[in-house]
Amino acid sequence: MTAQTLSGKELAASIREDVTLRVAELTASGRPVRLAVVTATEDESSAWYVRAIAKAAAKVGITCDIADLGSKADRQKISDTLVALSADPAVHGIILQTPLPEGLTLEELGSAIAPEKDVDGANPLSLGRLAAGLPAFAPATAEAVVTILEHYDVPVSGRHAVVVGRSTVVGKPAAHLLLDRHATVTVCHSRTADLAAVTSQGEILVAAVGRAGLITADHLKDGAVVIDVGTNPTPDGGLVGDVDAAAAERASAMTPVPGGVGPVTTALLLRHTAEVAERA
Amino acid sequence: MTAQTLSGKELAASIREDVTLRVAELTASGRPVRLAVVTATEDESSAWYVRAIAKAAAKVGITCDIADLGSKADRQKISDTLVALSADPAVHGIILQTPLPEGLTLEELGSAIAPEKDVDGANPLSLGRLAAGLPAFAPATAEAVVTILEHYDVPVSGRHAVVVGRSTVVGKPAAHLLLDRHATVTVCHSRTADLAAVTSQGEILVAAVGRAGLITADHLKDGAVVIDVGTNPTPDGGLVGDVDAAAAERASAMTPVPGGVGPVTTALLLRHTAEVAERA
Repeated sequence: MTAQTLSGKELAASIREDVTLRVAELTASGRPVRLAVVTATEDESSAWYVRAIAKAAAKVGITCDIADLGSKADRQKISDTLVALSADPAVHGIILQTPLPEGLTLEELGSAIAPEKDVDGANPLSLGRLAAGLPAFAPATAEAVVTILEHYDVPVSGRHAVVVGRSTVVGKPAAHLLLDRHATVTVCHSRTADLAAVTSQGEILVAAVGRAGLITADHLKDGAVVIDVGTNPTPDGGLVGDVDAAAAERASAMTPVPGGVGPVTTALLLRHTAEVAERA
Repeated sequence: MTAQTLSGKELAASIREDVTLRVAELTASGRPVRLAVVTATEDESSAWYVRAIAKAAAKVGITCDIADLGSKADRQKISDTLVALSADPAVHGIILQTPLPEGLTLEELGSAIAPEKDVDGANPLSLGRLAAGLPAFAPATAEAVVTILEHYDVPVSGRHAVVVGRSTVVGKPAAHLLLDRHATVTVCHSRTADLAAVTSQGEILVAAVGRAGLITADHLKDGAVVIDVGTNPTPDGGLVGDVDAAAAERASAMTPVPGGVGPVTTALLLRHTAEVAERA
């Protein structure tokens, strides 16, 4: 058996197509759409990602401002920038890019982003509202996981989904989104005693750890649907996920890396931004 | 094998003792401690519970005001009351009692409680901060679960904890608290395909459904530690948990109902209130 490839490219393209139309309508009525990305790092893969967002935004007609505060920016400076952008009626979406300068966390700084502009769900209030079943923007990566499952008609309700990784930006919100869709959800992580024993129960497996090849065929239930959130750089400048390629032998379907969760994540960020502009 | 009884009474008493001293100190320095409970229901078991809180508060020296808005109170009225109490410097803790009038939810109204006075973790921001690993008050019932485990030296890190129930007030926050303590956590619920198959993997089982006897011996792993959050009224005026008494045969330890999670929950509400007063 070789797994069906759950490509994110066509899905992302169809989301962007929809966003393009919505943004065109807003722009035509004198309401241009604007996204602001705040960065405070010299990390290269982060810079690459920010450029990719800006390019994708431009393609759908959204202006993307990058506020590069430099890797020496302190808490106050970043927070002030987020508060100012939150107050600026011309800005619809705000993303605070990670990594952040040492000692600063997205969890803390996220609260400086106005919840209604929090298109990547970084404000703890967004996560709380999500967990409480109230309207809120989920972190786009976590939403990409369930959007891909939905797009490919993978049944979720009543099934056992195992999420590997418990980060605030992916693992935890993905668990809530799956729980909302009536999955039985298990969250495991670095301290899980026998990882393979737990993951091999997942009819759906979400790998969101950030360790290349951590999940092998031995970690999978036969016929599992695997969503690989990992994006690990390879020495030759490529990108691989958390799931070993050989695991495809055992899965019934699997997202590729790159070309799976990534493009859908970016497309969802743009959709969120357009939604904010429509509400404004 | 008969399970060890994980009584909450002595633990609750020791928490109340600590709170009594702290409240006495605050009162002596002219800073009396005040808790406000807002109710909008004629539900009898709710009224019973509110009286129990008031009595427990009085015993530790905390004044408890009950604002009974009646079962016809609307969203605006309840929200206004919570906002006014949030602004009142004499009030340290605010609890919004459930059930609420039809169509109103704790999830929505909770945001009217100032996060710093949200001693029962009803504001979605509290839940979000909890999930993000930031300081926040957890819903007292969920905190009681992990407080009991800690008190009885039940190891949590690396173990598999299964939570039955996915409510915003118990199941979800309990899952986050267990995850924070490095458990592998599974949340199951009414849509879980084979409940017993999932629950019987839990080295720790938290039952928070509100259905008497739902969890039987067949649902347990041998030697499981069982925390029974259920409080289901019996026809004769008593109270039983979600776990069948016969399940004790298979568990290594189990909380009783009543006398388990309940008294610890009330004691934690009082402790939270004293903490707010100390910070004021």
